[in-house]
Amino acid sequence: MRIAELSRRSGVSVASIKYYLREGLLPPGELTSPNQARYGEEHLRRLRLVRALLDVGGLTVAGARDVLAAVDDEDVGLHHALGVAQTAVMARVEPVDDDDATVRAEKVVADLVARRGWMVTENNPGRRAAVDVVATLDRLGGDQVVGLLDVYAEAMEAVGDQEVAAVVDRGEREGSVERVVVGIVLGGALIAALRGMAQESASARRVGRGGER
Amino acid sequence: MRIAELSRRSGVSVASIKYYLREGLLPPGELTSPNQARYGEEHLRRLRLVRALLDVGGLTVAGARDVLAAVDDEDVGLHHALGVAQTAVMARVEPVDDDDATVRAEKVVADLVARRGWMVTENNPGRRAAVDVVATLDRLGGDQVVGLLDVYAEAMEAVGDQEVAAVVDRGEREGSVERVVVGIVLGGALIAALRGMAQESASARRVGRGGER
Repeated sequence: MRIAELSRRSGVSVASIKYYLREGLLPPGELTSPNQARYGEEHLRRLRLVRALLDVGGLTVAGARDVLAAVDDEDVGLHHALGVAQTAVMARVEPVDDDDATVRAEKVVADLVARRGWMVTENNPGRRAAVDVVATLDRLGGDQVVGLLDVYAEAMEAVGDQEVAAVVDRGEREGSVERVVVGIVLGGALIAALRGMAQESASARRVGRGGER
Repeated sequence: MRIAELSRRSGVSVASIKYYLREGLLPPGELTSPNQARYGEEHLRRLRLVRALLDVGGLTVAGARDVLAAVDDEDVGLHHALGVAQTAVMARVEPVDDDDATVRAEKVVADLVARRGWMVTENNPGRRAAVDVVATLDRLGGDQVVGLLDVYAEAMEAVGDQEVAAVVDRGEREGSVERVVVGIVLGGALIAALRGMAQESASARRVGRGGER
């Protein structure tokens, strides 16, 4: 199909398709003349994945490019794919500053890891992101989020365990890197969405019990 | 202080400060001549908050602007601030398409809400985001994330309950809108970070038990 049909069938504008081609998110079509290309069903499917990662998963273009490169590389294993997807999900975090707040945050996170008996390496992307969030909260003078650290950790312990079990239990290699990547990125978006619903529900329940607004 | 000193003390470039001023994220300084302004400690503090929301929280500029408008408006209550922050956190989600996948996703989410006894209105931003994520997974042909729906929901139930309790129990009005906003935005970033750590730990534990990689 021509780019116009690819646009019509995917619901993605021609301008966006051209942008994704330039950015390497979508592989080039087969050239049929010097300035015309033909696209196949695999382009349609890839476009769906690109939009899912960008619009629903909230990845940056650079993050999506890294993730798609892992999906396309047959030598990439599940463990590496997990790391790439985690890094992309947390891509917005700035390099950690080496101030007092960072030193304190590193201790807070190291204590949490020890307390929960987590097996986590120093360069886990989540660990660096956690240090940065805790240090940011310290600089802002906020404390209530840090007070919820163990609540969050316990919730994510159950989630991480079931997520890893869901990947391992399937076992098959076929399409599994894409499944892991989609699971990390869209799973994160789903968790954020459910958190918003659970907050409203908890708030409504408290009001219903005669609590404060 | 002049903009150069504001830049030096905040670690934010002059170009970025000017961008935030143009975008309304930072209030204008006091004009001391037609093309020079003076900035105070409140600008330094606001810059820290802006960077936290954008870099660590991952908000878009438009999302940060909405959130900061709520922080600055003394008539905004906690409940409204919660909604604004939730919407900003999920700002990337596209309008829901009205296709078969969306219809199925709406039923999946409505069933989840009924099963868990959640009190959630139709226009909760998380509810719309959840429908969109589930519909996107449906279109991609993925099923493993939807299989984790109740795992995610149970985890977020505990989180939402404790988060709302942490806000309500404090009670004081002073600075509380900012606290709620920071809690929603940075709490979400912290949850994502801890999920990455918990996944690695669960994976390492399974390998240690002689499980598959």
